[in-house]
Amino acid sequence: MAEAGTPLIRGAAAAGQKAGLDPGAPVYTGQHVDDPVHVTILRYGDEALPEASVSSLEACKSGPGVTWVNVDGVHDIDIVKRIGDAFGIHALAQEDALNPSSRPKVEDHGDHLFVVAKQARMMDDGTLDIEHFGIGVGASWLVSFQEREGGDVLEPVRARVKAGRMRMMATDFLLHAILDGIVDGYFVVLARFEEEVDALEASVLEATGAEFPSDVHQLRVRLGVLRRTIWPLREAVGTLVAGMHPLLDKKTRPYWRDLQDHVLHALELCDSLRDRLGSTLDLHLAVVSNRTNQVMRVLTVMASLFIPMTFVVGVYGMNFDYMPELRWRYGYPAVMGTMLITVIGMLAWFRRRNWM
Amino acid sequence: MAEAGTPLIRGAAAAGQKAGLDPGAPVYTGQHVDDPVHVTILRYGDEALPEASVSSLEACKSGPGVTWVNVDGVHDIDIVKRIGDAFGIHALAQEDALNPSSRPKVEDHGDHLFVVAKQARMMDDGTLDIEHFGIGVGASWLVSFQEREGGDVLEPVRARVKAGRMRMMATDFLLHAILDGIVDGYFVVLARFEEEVDALEASVLEATGAEFPSDVHQLRVRLGVLRRTIWPLREAVGTLVAGMHPLLDKKTRPYWRDLQDHVLHALELCDSLRDRLGSTLDLHLAVVSNRTNQVMRVLTVMASLFIPMTFVVGVYGMNFDYMPELRWRYGYPAVMGTMLITVIGMLAWFRRRNWM
Amino acid sequence: MAEAGTPLIRGAAAAGQKAGLDPGAPVYTGQHVDDPVHVTILRYGDEALPEASVSSLEACKSGPGVTWVNVDGVHDIDIVKRIGDAFGIHALAQEDALNPSSRPKVEDHGDHLFVVAKQARMMDDGTLDIEHFGIGVGASWLVSFQEREGGDVLEPVRARVKAGRMRMMATDFLLHAILDGIVDGYFVVLARFEEEVDALEASVLEATGAEFPSDVHQLRVRLGVLRRTIWPLREAVGTLVAGMHPLLDKKTRPYWRDLQDHVLHALELCDSLRDRLGSTLDLHLAVVSNRTNQVMRVLTVMASLFIPMTFVVGVYGMNFDYMPELRWRYGYPAVMGTMLITVIGMLAWFRRRNWM
Amino acid sequence: MAEAGTPLIRGAAAAGQKAGLDPGAPVYTGQHVDDPVHVTILRYGDEALPEASVSSLEACKSGPGVTWVNVDGVHDIDIVKRIGDAFGIHALAQEDALNPSSRPKVEDHGDHLFVVAKQARMMDDGTLDIEHFGIGVGASWLVSFQEREGGDVLEPVRARVKAGRMRMMATDFLLHAILDGIVDGYFVVLARFEEEVDALEASVLEATGAEFPSDVHQLRVRLGVLRRTIWPLREAVGTLVAGMHPLLDKKTRPYWRDLQDHVLHALELCDSLRDRLGSTLDLHLAVVSNRTNQVMRVLTVMASLFIPMTFVVGVYGMNFDYMPELRWRYGYPAVMGTMLITVIGMLAWFRRRNWM
Amino acid sequence: MAEAGTPLIRGAAAAGQKAGLDPGAPVYTGQHVDDPVHVTILRYGDEALPEASVSSLEACKSGPGVTWVNVDGVHDIDIVKRIGDAFGIHALAQEDALNPSSRPKVEDHGDHLFVVAKQARMMDDGTLDIEHFGIGVGASWLVSFQEREGGDVLEPVRARVKAGRMRMMATDFLLHAILDGIVDGYFVVLARFEEEVDALEASVLEATGAEFPSDVHQLRVRLGVLRRTIWPLREAVGTLVAGMHPLLDKKTRPYWRDLQDHVLHALELCDSLRDRLGSTLDLHLAVVSNRTNQVMRVLTVMASLFIPMTFVVGVYGMNFDYMPELRWRYGYPAVMGTMLITVIGMLAWFRRRNWM
Repeated sequence: MAEAGTPLIRGAAAAGQKAGLDPGAPVYTGQHVDDPVHVTILRYGDEALPEASVSSLEACKSGPGVTWVNVDGVHDIDIVKRIGDAFGIHALAQEDALNPSSRPKVEDHGDHLFVVAKQARMMDDGTLDIEHFGIGVGASWLVSFQEREGGDVLEPVRARVKAGRMRMMATDFLLHAILDGIVDGYFVVLARFEEEVDALEASVLEATGAEFPSDVHQLRVRLGVLRRTIWPLREAVGTLVAGMHPLLDKKTRPYWRDLQDHVLHALELCDSLRDRLGSTLDLHLAVVSNRTNQVMRVLTVMASLFIPMTFVVGVYGMNFDYMPELRWRYGYPAVMGTMLITVIGMLAWFRRRNWM
Repeated sequence: MAEAGTPLIRGAAAAGQKAGLDPGAPVYTGQHVDDPVHVTILRYGDEALPEASVSSLEACKSGPGVTWVNVDGVHDIDIVKRIGDAFGIHALAQEDALNPSSRPKVEDHGDHLFVVAKQARMMDDGTLDIEHFGIGVGASWLVSFQEREGGDVLEPVRARVKAGRMRMMATDFLLHAILDGIVDGYFVVLARFEEEVDALEASVLEATGAEFPSDVHQLRVRLGVLRRTIWPLREAVGTLVAGMHPLLDKKTRPYWRDLQDHVLHALELCDSLRDRLGSTLDLHLAVVSNRTNQVMRVLTVMASLFIPMTFVVGVYGMNFDYMPELRWRYGYPAVMGTMLITVIGMLAWFRRRNWM
Repeated sequence: MAEAGTPLIRGAAAAGQKAGLDPGAPVYTGQHVDDPVHVTILRYGDEALPEASVSSLEACKSGPGVTWVNVDGVHDIDIVKRIGDAFGIHALAQEDALNPSSRPKVEDHGDHLFVVAKQARMMDDGTLDIEHFGIGVGASWLVSFQEREGGDVLEPVRARVKAGRMRMMATDFLLHAILDGIVDGYFVVLARFEEEVDALEASVLEATGAEFPSDVHQLRVRLGVLRRTIWPLREAVGTLVAGMHPLLDKKTRPYWRDLQDHVLHALELCDSLRDRLGSTLDLHLAVVSNRTNQVMRVLTVMASLFIPMTFVVGVYGMNFDYMPELRWRYGYPAVMGTMLITVIGMLAWFRRRNWM
Repeated sequence: MAEAGTPLIRGAAAAGQKAGLDPGAPVYTGQHVDDPVHVTILRYGDEALPEASVSSLEACKSGPGVTWVNVDGVHDIDIVKRIGDAFGIHALAQEDALNPSSRPKVEDHGDHLFVVAKQARMMDDGTLDIEHFGIGVGASWLVSFQEREGGDVLEPVRARVKAGRMRMMATDFLLHAILDGIVDGYFVVLARFEEEVDALEASVLEATGAEFPSDVHQLRVRLGVLRRTIWPLREAVGTLVAGMHPLLDKKTRPYWRDLQDHVLHALELCDSLRDRLGSTLDLHLAVVSNRTNQVMRVLTVMASLFIPMTFVVGVYGMNFDYMPELRWRYGYPAVMGTMLITVIGMLAWFRRRNWM
Repeated sequence: MAEAGTPLIRGAAAAGQKAGLDPGAPVYTGQHVDDPVHVTILRYGDEALPEASVSSLEACKSGPGVTWVNVDGVHDIDIVKRIGDAFGIHALAQEDALNPSSRPKVEDHGDHLFVVAKQARMMDDGTLDIEHFGIGVGASWLVSFQEREGGDVLEPVRARVKAGRMRMMATDFLLHAILDGIVDGYFVVLARFEEEVDALEASVLEATGAEFPSDVHQLRVRLGVLRRTIWPLREAVGTLVAGMHPLLDKKTRPYWRDLQDHVLHALELCDSLRDRLGSTLDLHLAVVSNRTNQVMRVLTVMASLFIPMTFVVGVYGMNFDYMPELRWRYGYPAVMGTMLITVIGMLAWFRRRNWM
């Protein structure tokens, strides 16, 4: 696993880059990506609909059928502004679409809703990748702004639309499908986190170096980022469940409740993993404490046994002219015997104190 | 007790297995069980009722009497779908029945309620076994989907039905009986946890190795799983207490309140055990700290007494030609006497500092 | 104080003994007591009232005057059932009366209220004794079920009734008197806890062994039990303050508010003591850490001073034939002088680092 | 600073002294003070008002003008009862006036309010002095019961009344003035606490003994007492802000809001200081840990360098007849040289591990 | 980074300087600044407006156009009072303008609102500078009181006003612009804090001295100050979002919601940084623990190997006349060989215990 301090998080909200500008002024505040911007337009409905292009979007604003415009990459402000203006998306909502640091939320702008959400992916090297999503929804159109291309969360939704399974559905159902895909993605990340926690728990009794607490710290930080990403969505989906907006059909309510359930479940999994990490670190500290205590006991036993005896033999290594014991025939065995008895006594005492 | 990392939990929600599918698509997402699926049908009422079979279920949908269909094992999607469709259970509810990772809740689907709950059992080896329950309730029918056979929670309810004690009761009372059995099961598990906490508390002053914190950790994790299993039930039962649905007779309200009380009590017991575990770990750490301190004091006393004396006797073991003390008649007793006085002084100092 | 693990709590809710029975089935689930059951009946009112006996209770149900039936010991289910049925107490309430693990609460059963509360006493050996109380209150009767005899909380209330000071009062005031007595009892226990916390705080700087953290743990667990006993009462008294039930006279509202205040105050005292215990344990750990550090410093100073010098004198104790220094006339004083200077230098260094 | 366990708090609520008495029975439950009770009466209004005496108080109950009766010392129950009855103060309120352990609150007794508050002062020796205040307010009278004389919080209010600056004001404004003075007093105490926290923070890197954590503990306990003193006032002032009582003029509302703001600010300061104390203790523990680690390293370096060399010189101090090295001409320099090289190698290893 | 105890915070609320004064009495309670007070007046609207001076302010109270008066430095009470009285600002609001310790809030004074907010800046030396802002808003005027000159937060707003981009806007939009600038400033500070946290996290594995925990403490304290500065603003902006005051146009509501979002986001960033700091300190403690354990192991291995051998060679250094081994031809190699074997055995044991 990576060292402490290595940036294992990508896309988490950066602060402080837009101080002093007009609110609603369209400025892209994320990390600039040089990839080209992709706009894909999908129209579907009961009957066959003409293809739409970026220049004819305004005509799609009031049906028939549903027009879904997806923008991959929001660093080209002009495109965002043109598409946003075509559908009459509020200036503040356009700013939210451009600003990766805006929080997940549902904003009611009269004739359209604007939803901010965050997609989470886990890279192969363990990096947590947070991608910003802005979704404007009107009666017959949905525009999704994606920070970067490559998020595969929309693919299955697109496939379902193309397969015709959602043809009869209004835009609220399409919004549900996208958000459901985003929330399902959280569980994939959480499953990866769970594996890491399992691995840490399995190795805690053997872990010795500083890597273990460092890994726990790394995981804790990434888990915290994920949790803060999901947390505001709970409230946002709550307003969708309340469902007071005319765009939200009453029939979709069980689906929003289902989504809310998933969000709550994801948060509970986060908290559960966090608890387990905390408990694992406690366990690690207790293990280290115990180990230090054990090492201390070995040292104390060795030192307590041999240091006094070394003193004794030192005594009889002195070169005084008048040391009568040295001349005594049984001096040597007497000293050795006394020491042996002392050692046995000390060993018994150590054993009684459970130090050996 | 088991080592850290050993899976002591079975059936706890797995994440990330259903990303990208239609919501409401019936897919079983638990651990596949190859046991055959058992369907048991029970009809009861004021008068004698004909036996029902799986193929005639639709006729039971609107009485007379109460039909209780129990499905053991939800991995056969066809059976779940057939029975679910027979009673008109909502597609999302059917999905919840199949999905062991869905949270405890009460969903209002107009003419029927769908309740998700989790049964908890403690295996003989200390494994915590969480089993998923989905219960659809209509005016004259109740369908319970159980993840695995072997849960004995329904046995007493069935016995009471057969003994005729519930013959007059509507389906809401049957639902109460099943949930009550599930909640009672939590207390059985909590009693087992309480014994483990008692045992840990009793052994904390003697515990030395890394097994103690590891056991605390194990218990903490399992307790956390149980708590998260019970927690959402609190809210779900709350909606039953509010009791706005026409299926819920006003007369059963004291029973729902009673059930809510039990759920709250179970949660309080969880928290109490968790507090005690936390406090026990603190105690363990304090005990280890104290013990290390004690070991250190013994080492310090031994080393401080004998190391200086070993130096002194080393001095008179030197082989210099001109060391007048060595020739002095009383050199040897003088040195030994001086050392004895020093030792007594140091012992007094150690005793004053409470190190001995 | 007692060792960790010794049961210092009596009567705290046991779990898991009633799984699978009918709710409302009268089963006593506490620790079976073989003491005989005592039933005392007290009637009072404006005028002289005939004595009542257990067999004539039903007549007392609708006045005149107030009938107070007290049952000491609830293990005789027949008596509980007979008295409960005489006053029309709800089956679930009767179960609550018998079940010492039911939580404090106020249940509205139409024409009567049922209140569950817990009395707390501190035994002379420091055991915390929790006793279950179930109180049914009607317009002209009050039945109190007490788990064990010996709780002196009712004595002063009885004395006040007999002294005639409550003759004019309705049953709601009698209920207040009993609950007030129970809550006052909490403060007696809390005062004892406070003394123990004071004693622990006073001894923390001198405490050395494992008894100190163990005592803190013991106290923390008992305090937790008391807190969980009081906590649900807060909510229960809240419903009495709201006072929507016809039994509760508006005039008694200041008294209920007063009672609520006392309950809140008791909870605050609990939290305050818990905080102080936590802070005391922190202090203990800091003291032990500091002490270990001090012991380490003494050891290090002693070892650092004498181990190098022992080496030096060891060098001149070697028996090589060719060691010119040994033959030198000033070898001995030179070596001793060099060592003295080194020692003084090291002492200065230790003093600068504040190790001495 | 004082030792742990020394009572640095005076007047904090004592528990358990009133169990079993009638609620509303006037008993003084604080620490008995033998100081004489002082009653001061102040009348003011648009026109000149006759002086009032204790015996003529009842006439002041319904104006004209405002009568403010202040009672210093509540241990003389008769005086409290006489004055309380003269103004028709509710029995429970009189009990609250006498009982220093009752919580801050605002009680609505129909024609008058009763407010309980606590004054906090910091003595020169750092003792936190909590004084009980009970204030009854009617349309044209205000009675303040003060536990002890010497609280200077009323002096400025009295001065303002005498200076005529409050002559036009009704009793609600007088109540505000008193409570404002009490809350301002909290800030004085908090400023003292802040200085102590500053001093602790400044000394944390040098602190060595057990005094530091003990001081933190002391401060934490006193801060906790202050916090629990202020906390219920928040709610009490909230009911004044809601201002539903006819005594509270709508025009005073900004003033109550202002007072509520001050209370919230005081609570935030408490929490801030508590956080800082907690963080300071963490820092202290980290510093002690680091220091122990450093001491250990010095010990390990010294011991690892000299213990092996002492062994080597011990080898050549043995008295075997056949030890060829001893006879070798270059034995001595060879041994010394080898040891020097070993030492240099070990020093390099220690330096690489950053132990020196 | 600075040492613990160095004042790294400027302008944070000082307590206890205003006890005993009339509420609403205009006294400046901040740190007295001797800088001259600057008053700048800006008028704008649809048409050209005459310049306003301090003496003609009252005429601007009711339009036409918007008059924005900015006061840099509030220590000159006369100016504050004159301007405040000119616009009819409530006495309590004037006090709030002068008092840097008053909390962020929105006060409704009938025909005008008074908003208190705090600007945060990070100085180059890491000092957190909190500056008090009081803003009175009427239908056609806005007065901003700034504690010190030099806050650049108003500059961009002024530029926008001068550039004519806000000419059509009412005072509520101007208020929004100012608060938005203040909140944006929090993100600049938070970005600086984030860098410091990143730096600490990157250095935790190498950190050895007491500087590391001290730096964490410093950052924690400053972060706490910032958090407590932002926290009350959440509630204040919430009342603006509710938007019941006639001054607040419904059309500005999305802007207030946007602002609220930013405030919540800032608070979440605070909490995230606090979490990370806490986790970093835990990591540091674990690292130090591990390191101490490692040092202990080296010491124990060294001592355990050499102390027994030193004893053995000491034995054969004794000068007894009768020690037959000394005379034996192979005594020396036998002793050395035995010791070598013992050492190898111990090394194997240490390796098995993972100590080397």
